[in-house]
Amino acid sequence: MQDKLKIYGREFSSRFLIGTALYPSPAIMSESIAVSGAEIVTLSLRRQNPAQHEGNLVWDLIRQSGCQLLPNTAGCKTAREAVNLAEMSREIFRTDWLKLEVIGDDYNLQPDPFGLVEAAAELVKRGFRVLPYCTDDLVLCQRLLDAGCEVLMPWGAPIGTGQGLLNKYSLETLRTRLPQVPLIIDAGIGAPSQAAEAMEMGFDAVLLNTAVAKAHDPVAMARAFRLAIDAGRSAYQAGLMVRQQTASPSTPTLDMPFWHQADPLTQE
Amino acid sequence: MQDKLKIYGREFSSRFLIGTALYPSPAIMSESIAVSGAEIVTLSLRRQNPAQHEGNLVWDLIRQSGCQLLPNTAGCKTAREAVNLAEMSREIFRTDWLKLEVIGDDYNLQPDPFGLVEAAAELVKRGFRVLPYCTDDLVLCQRLLDAGCEVLMPWGAPIGTGQGLLNKYSLETLRTRLPQVPLIIDAGIGAPSQAAEAMEMGFDAVLLNTAVAKAHDPVAMARAFRLAIDAGRSAYQAGLMVRQQTASPSTPTLDMPFWHQADPLTQE
Amino acid sequence: MQDKLKIYGREFSSRFLIGTALYPSPAIMSESIAVSGAEIVTLSLRRQNPAQHEGNLVWDLIRQSGCQLLPNTAGCKTAREAVNLAEMSREIFRTDWLKLEVIGDDYNLQPDPFGLVEAAAELVKRGFRVLPYCTDDLVLCQRLLDAGCEVLMPWGAPIGTGQGLLNKYSLETLRTRLPQVPLIIDAGIGAPSQAAEAMEMGFDAVLLNTAVAKAHDPVAMARAFRLAIDAGRSAYQAGLMVRQQTASPSTPTLDMPFWHQADPLTQE
Amino acid sequence: MQDKLKIYGREFSSRFLIGTALYPSPAIMSESIAVSGAEIVTLSLRRQNPAQHEGNLVWDLIRQSGCQLLPNTAGCKTAREAVNLAEMSREIFRTDWLKLEVIGDDYNLQPDPFGLVEAAAELVKRGFRVLPYCTDDLVLCQRLLDAGCEVLMPWGAPIGTGQGLLNKYSLETLRTRLPQVPLIIDAGIGAPSQAAEAMEMGFDAVLLNTAVAKAHDPVAMARAFRLAIDAGRSAYQAGLMVRQQTASPSTPTLDMPFWHQADPLTQE
Repeated sequence: MQDKLKIYGREFSSRFLIGTALYPSPAIMSESIAVSGAEIVTLSLRRQNPAQHEGNLVWDLIRQSGCQLLPNTAGCKTAREAVNLAEMSREIFRTDWLKLEVIGDDYNLQPDPFGLVEAAAELVKRGFRVLPYCTDDLVLCQRLLDAGCEVLMPWGAPIGTGQGLLNKYSLETLRTRLPQVPLIIDAGIGAPSQAAEAMEMGFDAVLLNTAVAKAHDPVAMARAFRLAIDAGRSAYQAGLMVRQQTASPSTPTLDMPFWHQADPLTQE
Repeated sequence: MQDKLKIYGREFSSRFLIGTALYPSPAIMSESIAVSGAEIVTLSLRRQNPAQHEGNLVWDLIRQSGCQLLPNTAGCKTAREAVNLAEMSREIFRTDWLKLEVIGDDYNLQPDPFGLVEAAAELVKRGFRVLPYCTDDLVLCQRLLDAGCEVLMPWGAPIGTGQGLLNKYSLETLRTRLPQVPLIIDAGIGAPSQAAEAMEMGFDAVLLNTAVAKAHDPVAMARAFRLAIDAGRSAYQAGLMVRQQTASPSTPTLDMPFWHQADPLTQE
Repeated sequence: MQDKLKIYGREFSSRFLIGTALYPSPAIMSESIAVSGAEIVTLSLRRQNPAQHEGNLVWDLIRQSGCQLLPNTAGCKTAREAVNLAEMSREIFRTDWLKLEVIGDDYNLQPDPFGLVEAAAELVKRGFRVLPYCTDDLVLCQRLLDAGCEVLMPWGAPIGTGQGLLNKYSLETLRTRLPQVPLIIDAGIGAPSQAAEAMEMGFDAVLLNTAVAKAHDPVAMARAFRLAIDAGRSAYQAGLMVRQQTASPSTPTLDMPFWHQADPLTQE
Repeated sequence: MQDKLKIYGREFSSRFLIGTALYPSPAIMSESIAVSGAEIVTLSLRRQNPAQHEGNLVWDLIRQSGCQLLPNTAGCKTAREAVNLAEMSREIFRTDWLKLEVIGDDYNLQPDPFGLVEAAAELVKRGFRVLPYCTDDLVLCQRLLDAGCEVLMPWGAPIGTGQGLLNKYSLETLRTRLPQVPLIIDAGIGAPSQAAEAMEMGFDAVLLNTAVAKAHDPVAMARAFRLAIDAGRSAYQAGLMVRQQTASPSTPTLDMPFWHQADPLTQE
């Protein structure tokens, strides 16, 4: 009955992790988080610096959400940069949870496999609870686990594209090969149907930001994603029907033709 | 605020129409319908003949659901057969609502465009409120509207396959060309993510049976579909983000590098 | 060894049917046809009226190609219009071969299933050899065969879109259900890879126009399509490997590890 | 006019690289290579050890093909293993060309990004001309270039699956970001249409083995791939039409209706 997401010793009822950037206003951000049901929010010291004037309101609203904070290292391009930002974030946000990002290319903003493993190993040593934003490369994922990560966050598609799950084959491979590891699809999700599909495939949670923040109505979209993620999880547990190549009637009547039955009208 | 599905002068809160066949037991059928939130259920005189002994329990349970009954003409291969079965169904189920099926091929169980238009025209004349199960052919759809149908139910894929929306191009064409017509995706939906996608595309409702009835846990799957359809509808109304070809950061920091900001630690 | 396309009693070595519209110039059209290797060309009385001044050059070039002419009824919206144009085309182009088009919608320019069957039946009676441009609807296809058509030309996608094979499921169904009927994919093909795929699926030929005529270099593109269609046909006959879900080494060495073999260096 | 593939200072007319494993017989292998037109063949010391009795015939046939030999390190799981096998292969096959494989997972047989970069750097230092079999990860590709590789061979799908181009988005990203680098799609290609598509996307060549060797008729399939690769390359150079969302007539007659023209019959 209890279907909890377990990460680094904590349990969560929600499988929807949400970002805090790009919203039309702090108030809409705050309401979107509330409606999403998220219990974990990502945020960036570079944007939500509580020590800076303009960051105060956003920071207060995020803190009031009561969510587990998940500071990220967005924009970092080397392991060293990421480690430095992680340390500052831990200090200021008072949590050792970290969404590790090491960006390897300006065009597709993809994770740098090499920098990521290097940074993850260092951060784990320093006591961080690292949730790496990674690609769907199985070998990279195994290296991150070896480095001490207990959770992985493979991308569906490049950040902000909304393209959904670009390579279902490799995502299925990840799920099959790493059955015990919490896997959170992070980045690329643009529509609730895509989030539902990720959950139907057996992924443990979904993290997104742009698709909510850039919707015409972010609050309504946050609700839509909450429902879709719940739907996908329920479907995964309920056991999806097997896709068939050929049609089969949902109303099988061939062996029981009506006109061979007694006439229902005269029998009444 | 009020987002109602309007069909033939009636309003419905639910956009999930559900079938009554193939369930493991009458009790599971009954509970699945309840959990789905459906307000319209399809059923077949050939299976749920209330005048016949074995049909009594199922029939009682369906009646107790309080749903609008939508008798279907499943298994009919000609317009004449369909009209005859429709008349008997109206008599026995005491409703002039009808899901019109005229099957044109035993292999893919597809609607017969020709028999469908012929039967629809005749049934409308006889006072039926016809919901035709049709293909995604725009010309066929226009003919059915000309024949007096106020709602259309194009397929996503052949019955019972769970293949989802096989031809999104033609479905989008239907939606674009018939903006005022209630369009219900009927048949072929195998997973909640597919139902959500249909709703995100602007379809008005989804009708399905096999994907719930053949799930490992039909009741849980009924709930999953209810959530997904709600999610897809909400997303459609909330305005999906536009899919992008290239990545864009959800945490845009390039113009505001942290290391050029005042040091947050010393400022506290 | 002899792999001929047989249509209405004639045999063709080429499985590439080409259109004659939209080219940058008559000379490029002429050279494209030559390079394509096509033995059948479609043309329209509405454009290539040999009796009209501006049509003379094009008409002369087409005639000089030595191809079987296949006049079409492009732009006709009713069976009657199509029959009338067919009669005039027969008179002027001196052939009873006809690509029958009855357009049902201005937006997607799709075939009208109803007008198509009506026109086909009438034209067959009048002695035409009808090649109907139709959708991928199996029931429509069966009706056209019943009306006396010996060949069918289902679309891949709407004319001029280059979207390729939009509904592979329904096309595979057609191929499976009508194993003896020559099936030519007509419309929607935008790239040689798509034409090759159609042939790999077992279709008998491909008809296209826009993808060649609107290429940057139509003559080179005509050659590319010729090669691709040949490639797809050869692959179909050679028997494609079965797609696998899991990887298998093309160089299987696991059971024969090198380091257990005698040392090749010392053996030399 | 001359469209040559340039790799490591050599020029090739063929853009089809072929493997030498899995054929029903040495004779069929030999004929398949000949028919393919390939000028580069991969082979493995583990299989085609010319010093071992059973390898003699195959080795003689490969040598007689006159192709550039491209020994591979199939089955190697570490950089060290790959370097050792590379050295032996260079000795025996008398070429410093090398297809570098470092396998990272037994299930999907994927390249190990970490071992690959390590091995590539070492082999380049030792004077090898390295063609690395890699994933479609842009950062990995950039590292391999940094290590001194002048050519890259990203996968389409896992070896032997025939799934085609699983992630077109990432492959397009590679092509866009590395416009000057020869990129050869290696692994996963199962059908000529897939090879043609890779070439249409602008890739420089295709390497495959299983799809030919495991065809019902390998020789005919080798020919089919040769044609398809040529077709795809020609199409890329000829400039594919732009895919359209909406239909447009290939025979535009709307503004020039026939019945407003002079009557062609009376004018004759």
